[in-house]
Amino acid sequence: MYFLLKFAPLFLAVSVCHGWLFGDFVGKQKELDEISLWPLPQKFQSSAVAFKLSPARFQIVHAKESSAGPSCSLLENAFRRYFEYMFGERKKHEKSRKKAFDSDLVELKVWITAADPECDGYPSLQTDESYELSVDEPSAVLKAANVWGALLGLETFSQLVYEDDYGVNNINKTVISDFPRFAHRGILLDSSRHFLPLKVILANLEAMAMNKFNVFHWHIVDDQSFPYMSRTFPELSQKGAYHPFTHVYTPSDVKMVIEFARMRGIRVIPEFDTPGHTESWGNGMKGLLTPCYSGSTPSGTFGPVNPILNSSYEFMAQFFKEISTVFPDAYIHLGGDEVDFNCWKSNPDVRKFMEQQGFGTDYRKLESFYIQRLLDIVAATKKGYMVWQEVFDNGVKLKADTQIHVWKERPQYQDEMAQVTAAGFSALLSAPWYLNRISYGQDWVNIYKADPQNFTGTDAQKKLVIGGEACLWGEYVDATNLTPRLWPRASAVAERLWSDKSVTDVSKAYNRLVQHRCRMVKRGIPAEPLFVGHCRHEYKGL
Amino acid sequence: MYFLLKFAPLFLAVSVCHGWLFGDFVGKQKELDEISLWPLPQKFQSSAVAFKLSPARFQIVHAKESSAGPSCSLLENAFRRYFEYMFGERKKHEKSRKKAFDSDLVELKVWITAADPECDGYPSLQTDESYELSVDEPSAVLKAANVWGALLGLETFSQLVYEDDYGVNNINKTVISDFPRFAHRGILLDSSRHFLPLKVILANLEAMAMNKFNVFHWHIVDDQSFPYMSRTFPELSQKGAYHPFTHVYTPSDVKMVIEFARMRGIRVIPEFDTPGHTESWGNGMKGLLTPCYSGSTPSGTFGPVNPILNSSYEFMAQFFKEISTVFPDAYIHLGGDEVDFNCWKSNPDVRKFMEQQGFGTDYRKLESFYIQRLLDIVAATKKGYMVWQEVFDNGVKLKADTQIHVWKERPQYQDEMAQVTAAGFSALLSAPWYLNRISYGQDWVNIYKADPQNFTGTDAQKKLVIGGEACLWGEYVDATNLTPRLWPRASAVAERLWSDKSVTDVSKAYNRLVQHRCRMVKRGIPAEPLFVGHCRHEYKGL
Repeated sequence: MYFLLKFAPLFLAVSVCHGWLFGDFVGKQKELDEISLWPLPQKFQSSAVAFKLSPARFQIVHAKESSAGPSCSLLENAFRRYFEYMFGERKKHEKSRKKAFDSDLVELKVWITAADPECDGYPSLQTDESYELSVDEPSAVLKAANVWGALLGLETFSQLVYEDDYGVNNINKTVISDFPRFAHRGILLDSSRHFLPLKVILANLEAMAMNKFNVFHWHIVDDQSFPYMSRTFPELSQKGAYHPFTHVYTPSDVKMVIEFARMRGIRVIPEFDTPGHTESWGNGMKGLLTPCYSGSTPSGTFGPVNPILNSSYEFMAQFFKEISTVFPDAYIHLGGDEVDFNCWKSNPDVRKFMEQQGFGTDYRKLESFYIQRLLDIVAATKKGYMVWQEVFDNGVKLKADTQIHVWKERPQYQDEMAQVTAAGFSALLSAPWYLNRISYGQDWVNIYKADPQNFTGTDAQKKLVIGGEACLWGEYVDATNLTPRLWPRASAVAERLWSDKSVTDVSKAYNRLVQHRCRMVKRGIPAEPLFVGHCRHEYKGL
Repeated sequence: MYFLLKFAPLFLAVSVCHGWLFGDFVGKQKELDEISLWPLPQKFQSSAVAFKLSPARFQIVHAKESSAGPSCSLLENAFRRYFEYMFGERKKHEKSRKKAFDSDLVELKVWITAADPECDGYPSLQTDESYELSVDEPSAVLKAANVWGALLGLETFSQLVYEDDYGVNNINKTVISDFPRFAHRGILLDSSRHFLPLKVILANLEAMAMNKFNVFHWHIVDDQSFPYMSRTFPELSQKGAYHPFTHVYTPSDVKMVIEFARMRGIRVIPEFDTPGHTESWGNGMKGLLTPCYSGSTPSGTFGPVNPILNSSYEFMAQFFKEISTVFPDAYIHLGGDEVDFNCWKSNPDVRKFMEQQGFGTDYRKLESFYIQRLLDIVAATKKGYMVWQEVFDNGVKLKADTQIHVWKERPQYQDEMAQVTAAGFSALLSAPWYLNRISYGQDWVNIYKADPQNFTGTDAQKKLVIGGEACLWGEYVDATNLTPRLWPRASAVAERLWSDKSVTDVSKAYNRLVQHRCRMVKRGIPAEPLFVGHCRHEYKGL
């Protein structure tokens, strides 16, 4: 936040000339350098007129006209959270009886316009996330169709507030009309390569909300460990987790993650990746994985899920039935990436099955055979599905609403995006956003420059791009280093997925991102620095 | 620590065959895979016989013969610290009246053999850091000439302790004779590019002690900020720090760092780098820096310290007089790296001075002129000095005991080490250990492989290598990410500087380092993971 102060004189000088600063973000961004909004709203007008906010008088309230009221605990919770972000330690409850000064902003009225505010619902791919925010004396008004738009507007409102030289909170006269460029804005965390304690996941959900991310893609299990505690198959985590008590997510842990995310407008999409990446499943489910052979005898090691046994599909049907009830989101991520054919090739029963099915020696056909049956199983649970790009590449027959997740950087992820959308499927981009990959210096710049619609295709194809995800695979991260490695680098993805396509100026972005990063730090998120400098409020943890 | 358990059966099996495991580290390292000592001691014998440690009965005590006793607060403090590391939350003061079992280890006796235990002293380059440790029933004995060796032995003792399946602490019958390969084993932290809160510095001193590092090279000021609060020149930090109150080290902060380090056997060597890297000094000391010119007029910007004014040297004399009393160590690091000549070249007064001195256009001569006078000033304070390699490269006349700090990776740091030592100077290596530079994957391996004596030279030259330092420059790190970025990567440097030259096996090192990293995590240091896996006690912070 120090930046605002440092540039306050410049800001005022410019403002006096222009009266109102108008930002339509097509070439007229100059005046916006001095604000710290992240991601940048779609439409924004600000003036040099500033109001003061008194922690003893300022309130966030339901507008009279709003369809939501004090019984909407999601909003009540959000009001308190944002009050805390803005005023921190300063007492809320000791209300002042003093009359407000003319220069005060006394309240923010939150007005939900739809008949159903969705207080107890879940956000979805179709959610209207737009909001309108007007800051003027004596009241600011935040208008949204539902609570999801209101949450996003509250974040923006809190970002407009800045400390003056006396430490007093100020906010400038402002009008904002905002909505996301893409509907799916996700973060992938991997709790298999390293177990992530609940508090790490929750802290990152907090940070996601600060960046207007709306999907937590939970890559919950993989080869290395199976921390998901299944009610139907408890042995999976008992034998597949790093430790059956200290390194698992109980059903109540999972519920807590989902509810914590919901309160912040974030969907939770679990990934249960099969038939590859399943080594840990084999510990608690004998017979599920393909026995690999060394010559004519089993070698004692196991490969992907055994696709030639009915028992594999019966297991998957029961397992995904549970998953479909535990996770309320309409989508499940089914993985389908990096299937190693060597074990299948080594196994005489698999080879015989290939022959019977007429697959020849094309193991991609066997993979497709498995995936096809799995998709039918999951479709029966009424869930939609996301899959990694290989499933599309290998020609599996897919439901029209399948979402293809593009992750391979080479040869050209842009070509893959073009092919996926040309075939009429929804596409999600992650290829340039594998944030586990690190290098020295300001790598956020290339992350920021990537654009999901930057490929050759028709308008109809571009519309099939529903968004993207920043992925932080877990080989080299755990509770000790995950959060600073993810933030503020993921913030670069956040702005790309939210703001207008024309918002691409790196040096302007740098100035805002420096402030945004300090804001995350002030709110308790150990977001790492972009470069030399300091924050007014440095990180208080270790 | 989980590793010890996992491999306990293997460990026992091997032990039974050999009776005593003998590790002289020249080819016979096999049995040592299963222990978690880091850095590996010089001489080590262990047996399969294990003793139990009861938190209610076990004590660390002064040996009767010891020259140190309960009035030695450094040791008393260390006893408590290591008891806490070994037993954690478990109560110390509720002593059991039950008789010890035969299988118990009831005490560790610490025996200081020299007449002066140095309880209230400071460690130095000449300190005898050797110790001998014998673990047997009913007592273990740690013998060292002074408290510094005892601190190192306490760390080793604590590393020998492991939890069995019941969570009970065990220790195997062991004899260790240990001493460091190099006398100077340092970590450089940079508190100028980002201010480092005191607790971050203290936490890293803790971690240093866990790795037997013995020098904290405090790169305390630089171009970006001047957080050192000087009593003589308070304006330096008032105007040169990021913030004069929240982003400075007060005299009492500095004292605390020095005392905290002393309690852990760590020297604090401050660096005040001149004549370059001094931009922040100029804010609080008008006239100190060289005014740069644009054509025939001053441009308003400033370059290195102005070497042509007597006032510059008068200032330095006063300043380093203060520094020499504030920091008790016998050495000060004077920097001297990366001096940019452009500003000097632009300044007509400097050019005139060059002419008068007969320097022609060789600005290295001007740099040497400055450094020479500075060295004389510092020598008058009775301090020794360290300098970056440029000072040697530029042919400055140096005292025989000057330590040359080699940092440039190219063209070949090995050649520089050869040249410095051929000229008879002590050399310190940092070139391969710039840990601020990061890349994806297990970069600790190359860090581990570098060896300070790996250059062409005589035995006498090799003896002039006094050690090395891992450097974590501050451009991209602050309180949010410093600690996990430094550890356990710096641990690789720690073993290189402590253990025998022959200890180079990467896969054995990996196994021990995984355990050592989990031990640091258990003790509250957020050391990042080396690769996939888990710790029995995961990090409890964020």
